[in-house]
Amino acid sequence: MRIRLDLAYDGTRFYGWAAQPGLRTVEGELSAALAMVTRVPEIRLTCAGRTDSGVHARGQVVHVDLPDLPEGPERLARRLNGVLDADVRVRRAVVAPEGFDARFSASWRRYAYRVADRPELVDPLRRSYVMAWGRPVDEALMNAAALALLGEHDFASFCKQREGATTIRTLRDLLWSREDDGLLVANVRADAFCHSMVRSLVGCLLAIGDGRRDVAWAASVLAQARRESTVVVAPAHGLTLEEVAYPPDGELGDRVKVTRARRG
Amino acid sequence: MRIRLDLAYDGTRFYGWAAQPGLRTVEGELSAALAMVTRVPEIRLTCAGRTDSGVHARGQVVHVDLPDLPEGPERLARRLNGVLDADVRVRRAVVAPEGFDARFSASWRRYAYRVADRPELVDPLRRSYVMAWGRPVDEALMNAAALALLGEHDFASFCKQREGATTIRTLRDLLWSREDDGLLVANVRADAFCHSMVRSLVGCLLAIGDGRRDVAWAASVLAQARRESTVVVAPAHGLTLEEVAYPPDGELGDRVKVTRARRG
Repeated sequence: MRIRLDLAYDGTRFYGWAAQPGLRTVEGELSAALAMVTRVPEIRLTCAGRTDSGVHARGQVVHVDLPDLPEGPERLARRLNGVLDADVRVRRAVVAPEGFDARFSASWRRYAYRVADRPELVDPLRRSYVMAWGRPVDEALMNAAALALLGEHDFASFCKQREGATTIRTLRDLLWSREDDGLLVANVRADAFCHSMVRSLVGCLLAIGDGRRDVAWAASVLAQARRESTVVVAPAHGLTLEEVAYPPDGELGDRVKVTRARRG
Repeated sequence: MRIRLDLAYDGTRFYGWAAQPGLRTVEGELSAALAMVTRVPEIRLTCAGRTDSGVHARGQVVHVDLPDLPEGPERLARRLNGVLDADVRVRRAVVAPEGFDARFSASWRRYAYRVADRPELVDPLRRSYVMAWGRPVDEALMNAAALALLGEHDFASFCKQREGATTIRTLRDLLWSREDDGLLVANVRADAFCHSMVRSLVGCLLAIGDGRRDVAWAASVLAQARRESTVVVAPAHGLTLEEVAYPPDGELGDRVKVTRARRG
């Protein structure tokens, strides 16, 4: 029986999603909580977005295969929240539809990157998830530069390469906007992201937004199609995985096949 | 020379605004930072809203009288932020206009109280300033009940009484609304508030909103005009001082006279 869990977490005190011996990770904490609550000793989790150390999530999606749950998934969520620390919450637990795979059936992921670029925007209440930037930033310049990045490209320039893995991705949205209070937010949406890709895109665009680089620089970095050491990876704590989307239930299996073929 | 400082702080690790020997308070930290930066040994601060332990601020206003500042107030703000911990920030420092008094010339204060009343609204990133409430709450019932509280009344039922101090206040707004993501926020605005007044008002209305009391109960509590032990004071961490308003510069002195006369 496959269970879908929707998670939110404050990444500040986690060494990222992936379990690592001796380190506090979201996967490690959630696996331990599930093992305690279900008495299933071997828990294997699959997540939609393997967030790095310090990165947050509001819309992380995970699946886990469990023996029959006599009490139902809602009760499971409540019991997990009773065991987990307050910096990670199970927002929803449901029986996953046929063919669902948290990672491979996802249609797209959306991340938000938040920046306070003026002293009066720096808010101590939000300091764990908003990056304070010392210079004012022009969002129109960043949005102009981002246009050249949209669509299907080899994003090797913005990725920490892994052996044998493709760095071709489809970037659907990369739009900076100001919230009512002036806070700058980038919404970045793609079929999937490779390692450190959002933070590299943000670091590249901030250099354009604060005037150190011109608008054409983003396109020229992309065109190199290899890791560009002049792009500064933006700090982890400004980044939040906001949303993961899936196709309608009947198309989940097909989506898995497409994804596996593309990633190969 | 009177300086106006606009402050934001995360109240989690503070024992409130007011200096207390041996405890970390906002007044204590800011006084120490000012003494260090200006080399003025005796710092006396006056604030617009004496927040309790655990209460936050985005729009706290403070004044301090200092000898001439050769470097100007902007430089003072930067130096204070260099000394202060990240949970308190000076957002602005300016030379105060003639007649300005952070406390007595304020026209009104606005507080926000934030509630997550469904499990899927509980957000670990905002857990330090949003109160999680176990039952769903009907904001229309709370707004209906709040209408009877608006205007000038003796709010003794909602205040921790202090010897010789009036509990008559003018409540201008008390409106609950849902933000886009479903979070429930009360905006509460008055000329001034007595001790624990916002949290008592919120506690009273939550009991109406989740169905334990009927809409008329708020008016009946108010009418008693004495501290009502059946009103539960809502937890501090949901409360944030958002904004303090002042009259135009030419009217600051008159406003001080009116306020002092009313409070007497």
